[in-house]
Amino acid sequence: MRPSGRAADAMRTISVETNFTKHAEGSVLIGFGDTKVLVTASIEEKVPGWMRNTGKGWVTAEYGMLPRATHTRGSREAAKGKQSGRTQEIQRLIGRSLRAVCDMKKLGERQIVLDCDVIQADGGTRTASISGAWIALRLAIDGLLAQKLITEDPLFQQIAGISCGIYEGTPVLDLDYIEDSNAEADANFVLLGDGRLAEVQATAEGAPYDEEQLLRLLRLARIGCDEIFAAQRKATGR
Amino acid sequence: MRPSGRAADAMRTISVETNFTKHAEGSVLIGFGDTKVLVTASIEEKVPGWMRNTGKGWVTAEYGMLPRATHTRGSREAAKGKQSGRTQEIQRLIGRSLRAVCDMKKLGERQIVLDCDVIQADGGTRTASISGAWIALRLAIDGLLAQKLITEDPLFQQIAGISCGIYEGTPVLDLDYIEDSNAEADANFVLLGDGRLAEVQATAEGAPYDEEQLLRLLRLARIGCDEIFAAQRKATGR
Amino acid sequence: MRPSGRAADAMRTISVETNFTKHAEGSVLIGFGDTKVLVTASIEEKVPGWMRNTGKGWVTAEYGMLPRATHTRGSREAAKGKQSGRTQEIQRLIGRSLRAVCDMKKLGERQIVLDCDVIQADGGTRTASISGAWIALRLAIDGLLAQKLITEDPLFQQIAGISCGIYEGTPVLDLDYIEDSNAEADANFVLLGDGRLAEVQATAEGAPYDEEQLLRLLRLARIGCDEIFAAQRKATGR
Amino acid sequence: MRPSGRAADAMRTISVETNFTKHAEGSVLIGFGDTKVLVTASIEEKVPGWMRNTGKGWVTAEYGMLPRATHTRGSREAAKGKQSGRTQEIQRLIGRSLRAVCDMKKLGERQIVLDCDVIQADGGTRTASISGAWIALRLAIDGLLAQKLITEDPLFQQIAGISCGIYEGTPVLDLDYIEDSNAEADANFVLLGDGRLAEVQATAEGAPYDEEQLLRLLRLARIGCDEIFAAQRKATGR
Amino acid sequence: MRPSGRAADAMRTISVETNFTKHAEGSVLIGFGDTKVLVTASIEEKVPGWMRNTGKGWVTAEYGMLPRATHTRGSREAAKGKQSGRTQEIQRLIGRSLRAVCDMKKLGERQIVLDCDVIQADGGTRTASISGAWIALRLAIDGLLAQKLITEDPLFQQIAGISCGIYEGTPVLDLDYIEDSNAEADANFVLLGDGRLAEVQATAEGAPYDEEQLLRLLRLARIGCDEIFAAQRKATGR
Amino acid sequence: MRPSGRAADAMRTISVETNFTKHAEGSVLIGFGDTKVLVTASIEEKVPGWMRNTGKGWVTAEYGMLPRATHTRGSREAAKGKQSGRTQEIQRLIGRSLRAVCDMKKLGERQIVLDCDVIQADGGTRTASISGAWIALRLAIDGLLAQKLITEDPLFQQIAGISCGIYEGTPVLDLDYIEDSNAEADANFVLLGDGRLAEVQATAEGAPYDEEQLLRLLRLARIGCDEIFAAQRKATGR
Repeated sequence: MRPSGRAADAMRTISVETNFTKHAEGSVLIGFGDTKVLVTASIEEKVPGWMRNTGKGWVTAEYGMLPRATHTRGSREAAKGKQSGRTQEIQRLIGRSLRAVCDMKKLGERQIVLDCDVIQADGGTRTASISGAWIALRLAIDGLLAQKLITEDPLFQQIAGISCGIYEGTPVLDLDYIEDSNAEADANFVLLGDGRLAEVQATAEGAPYDEEQLLRLLRLARIGCDEIFAAQRKATGR
Repeated sequence: MRPSGRAADAMRTISVETNFTKHAEGSVLIGFGDTKVLVTASIEEKVPGWMRNTGKGWVTAEYGMLPRATHTRGSREAAKGKQSGRTQEIQRLIGRSLRAVCDMKKLGERQIVLDCDVIQADGGTRTASISGAWIALRLAIDGLLAQKLITEDPLFQQIAGISCGIYEGTPVLDLDYIEDSNAEADANFVLLGDGRLAEVQATAEGAPYDEEQLLRLLRLARIGCDEIFAAQRKATGR
Repeated sequence: MRPSGRAADAMRTISVETNFTKHAEGSVLIGFGDTKVLVTASIEEKVPGWMRNTGKGWVTAEYGMLPRATHTRGSREAAKGKQSGRTQEIQRLIGRSLRAVCDMKKLGERQIVLDCDVIQADGGTRTASISGAWIALRLAIDGLLAQKLITEDPLFQQIAGISCGIYEGTPVLDLDYIEDSNAEADANFVLLGDGRLAEVQATAEGAPYDEEQLLRLLRLARIGCDEIFAAQRKATGR
Repeated sequence: MRPSGRAADAMRTISVETNFTKHAEGSVLIGFGDTKVLVTASIEEKVPGWMRNTGKGWVTAEYGMLPRATHTRGSREAAKGKQSGRTQEIQRLIGRSLRAVCDMKKLGERQIVLDCDVIQADGGTRTASISGAWIALRLAIDGLLAQKLITEDPLFQQIAGISCGIYEGTPVLDLDYIEDSNAEADANFVLLGDGRLAEVQATAEGAPYDEEQLLRLLRLARIGCDEIFAAQRKATGR
Repeated sequence: MRPSGRAADAMRTISVETNFTKHAEGSVLIGFGDTKVLVTASIEEKVPGWMRNTGKGWVTAEYGMLPRATHTRGSREAAKGKQSGRTQEIQRLIGRSLRAVCDMKKLGERQIVLDCDVIQADGGTRTASISGAWIALRLAIDGLLAQKLITEDPLFQQIAGISCGIYEGTPVLDLDYIEDSNAEADANFVLLGDGRLAEVQATAEGAPYDEEQLLRLLRLARIGCDEIFAAQRKATGR
Repeated sequence: MRPSGRAADAMRTISVETNFTKHAEGSVLIGFGDTKVLVTASIEEKVPGWMRNTGKGWVTAEYGMLPRATHTRGSREAAKGKQSGRTQEIQRLIGRSLRAVCDMKKLGERQIVLDCDVIQADGGTRTASISGAWIALRLAIDGLLAQKLITEDPLFQQIAGISCGIYEGTPVLDLDYIEDSNAEADANFVLLGDGRLAEVQATAEGAPYDEEQLLRLLRLARIGCDEIFAAQRKATGR
């Protein structure tokens, strides 16, 4: 029995509020249950130095957590003067995931920065970030297309992330905070709309896992991502 | 004529959404027009080292701006590895303002941290932060009183902040971003519920100002703060 | 009765020693009683990147305190690896004040950096810095005029800073350290030679203040600044 | 055809030189072909603050790369003043992997730090680090057992890491640098001696991958890890 | 012929102004010609952590240069966020030199910090710092003896530093800035009052030197230090 | 009697293994007894900004110590976020020493970076670094000559470093760690192949030294350096 009473293969409610802020070229407040992440997409008409004059664009991400997004207040990374290893690991993952579905040539020599800021945390913030970032990116690119700044759509697939894990011996979908902090193993999957994989990160926390369990977790991830893909399409009118 | 069409002594709409997040002991999303600040109050049952064993509490604040809260994306302070002088100046002002209305003895040896994070910026983020912080602090202290962790109310007054300025030669209330970036002078006032002053910061940006203008700005500030005080009382049931 | 025995509206002795160091284009050791600040003005024939090719100049300031300028030794900011919020707030104030009386177009595309280093502290270091910085800037600009590097004088007014405060219920002028650390309210004023205001920063430390007290503090500031203006003119032969 | 001429399921030569340095409680220079990593295990008779008085020990890792371990010189992280996100991600992975096979209770309240410094890089430095760290840890713990500082062996399993990837459409084992920088997908596996999994990290670099390919990569990883396990046993006399 | 017209073995004028600032337990403005260094000695009734409960004291130094002490403005180390290698090298040398003549047991469990801040630089700032630091330390310790906080004098010798160098082929004493920046070799000597050596640092800048030149430089240093020792005694009444 | 049983003027065994790593243009693992330093020389076809378009090259060094090179583990400088004063002092010394024997004009507008990383420490790491750096530099320059990228040999002399010290009253050559940590005085000498000096750094640790002792230490250094010069020639075929 899961603490939330959910079935092993049940997602939490996905909530999506697009255009949550007004300045960004794309913005969304995405929720997986009580996990709420504000994602904005900012278009910059220049690329990092090492990409200049390649004719290609770049998509990157930054991740942050408001100090009191969590049960007990965490210290502010800006005040500490550095981003934790965890933060850097997460923002690298988000950027890599979004780049996996974006054709940099079609994007042209511009950069899109996805800022994922966790307003409230209850497990799964990195996968909610990826899932929301796709929406913000979609909206930003739709703007570029509408303004005819680009002519071909560079975003060739949907992408979504979901966490699964082995909780009290049972593989379950979409861990919340209580499950996450007690799971024997914890896996994040990033899937494309066509079912292929961009990323698997499966980590033994309390106990090693076997191949069959890994596959069961992947099957749960497919169930969750299908639900996220539908929410993404509804939010962006695709 | 103000860009927004407002009268010289007209505030923008004040919006207040309490309990915007669930973990903090007090939380509020406060809006002055399009400026939106999320303030959380976190109670910590310990005080900074230099206050230990004094029997007194402490109230402090941190301030941050999401990278794309603004018209063009600003860099993330956590990524740059330090808080700007502006950020530090603002968070010192917020903390000082709230301490002006809180009896540290009655609070007891605990710390309350007010995190003010700007979700969307359109001028006046520091004064919206102060005004919202009072609400979050009020809610957090009401919790302490309800749980009988303290017996006397340490928060003895309301406090609010508002910006005024001289725009195209005319003193106006509650500057939005366009006014703020073009004002000849720019003043932030922090007032107590009883009309006394906790802070005046009046800065010539484009042209010096005279004593009469300063007093006119203060009079506008009183108009604005009365409106904020009413909103604070309504939000907290006081 | 003030600890120093001064009348409420009495300044400490102002001392000014120009050309205290030999390399800087302008330099002065300014004293307000036991507070001693060395200010140097350095002319650099280039401006910050964001100002390039605007035909305008820039005036900026940095502030520091020698570790043992104070009663007990403070840690060295260079050793700690960052400037405190207080330091940044002060140097922003100094730069802003001097820019308020300098025509950047007439200065031409060059930068003048005012380094204000506190040799000995006894209250009022930021306002002594502003007052001394005007002298150093005046001397540096006189040098530019003498060398005919500029033809019109960009420094169109005097500017001076002074602290006042409410000490044991009485508004007093030019706080020394003992008064400053016990004042109920503490205000820094930056005035132009023609009596207009560039900056008012009035902060309740122990008790809020009212409008009448604010005005009384401003009147004291005018008395103090007149004395500083006279000392500035004498030191620079204006 | 692989650039090195190896078969798809062929490892590079594994070289192991134990006691490469004399001060550490365990040390090894491990090579996967031209990739050479020096791993030392340092026993400290204290644990991090948050673990004190729990009766449990801790195992952690740090990772670094000598500036000229690579084809072109990289900048020294100590000189830059911070560890890259990549470095932090890797050292977190190494520590987590080793903790998966160590019983912290049996280790007792002491910490073992595994320093993995890459002397020469040719792909697979993180997995060589994990594989070598097990040897260094084994040697250090053998010392504790020999000195009777602990009575029960806390290291209950072998653990090894190996990278696999999809190179020119073919899943291959133990990527060298040329393969690594051109692979369509890149996966790191951390396996226990009994075949269970501690970590799977599979990332699409150039093209998404499907479930069958993931399983094929895992099968290759098993082949590689078996070879590493044998080398570990030989080196430590187990 | 030296740029200053001095003979090869002639020092610049040594100036000493004790009690230059009022808060420090010992303070001096020392000048070697146009090089002016303010040294303060601060007594702290605690020692660094690693010395606690040893019954011994500690003497340490910090060094800084005001940004415009030099011909062209240097950046402020506090603003850059770190001390340069040169600064650290110098302050380590100053501390080590003073510790060479101080009996830590007799000093008792307290720390004396010598802050050496260069007000104006014209070559030889590190050796002027050492020479002035002895005076400040002497004054501070005299205060401890006068207050009977210690009973035996821990400062058992004088110590002084002087720079010499090979300028246009000739060994010369007490290099000024022009000589220093053009010298073929540059040597700093730290001598005790009894003629013994605490430190020799002789560096080839433009051309290697031979043993005879090294000895000639040492002989010049003895001449210079004798003059400094006399100035130290006069300033401290020893 | 020395702890190692060596005679006062006996070096430890010098070991030299060239081409220890394969990517660097020059590389060597040099040993003075149990002190082992890996030095790599990296050629970069650009120079620091301040040297551009001068037609001259640059030689510089960086120094690091693996955390467990020492008896007890030291913290990793990359993790602490800064290089210690000691590290900076050493790497400045190494760079300066090598520049003393290299004609920057003949090197042409390119930079050679010497990375000295201590694999195992037993005293004398900085002098082993200098001595090994000459070998790595020699090899790198030989490569430039062989490829005819330069036509004249810029490296006009050998250079070597050695530490000597006064241990239990006796001047001894090539201190190992036990001697080094107990020496009364500690001196590092950097000598050219022709017997001239590039650097003398002689420091009193426990007791001042006199001129005769300094000369005795220098004589020992000559003995040691002759042995190092021979090893350098043998290793590089000169």
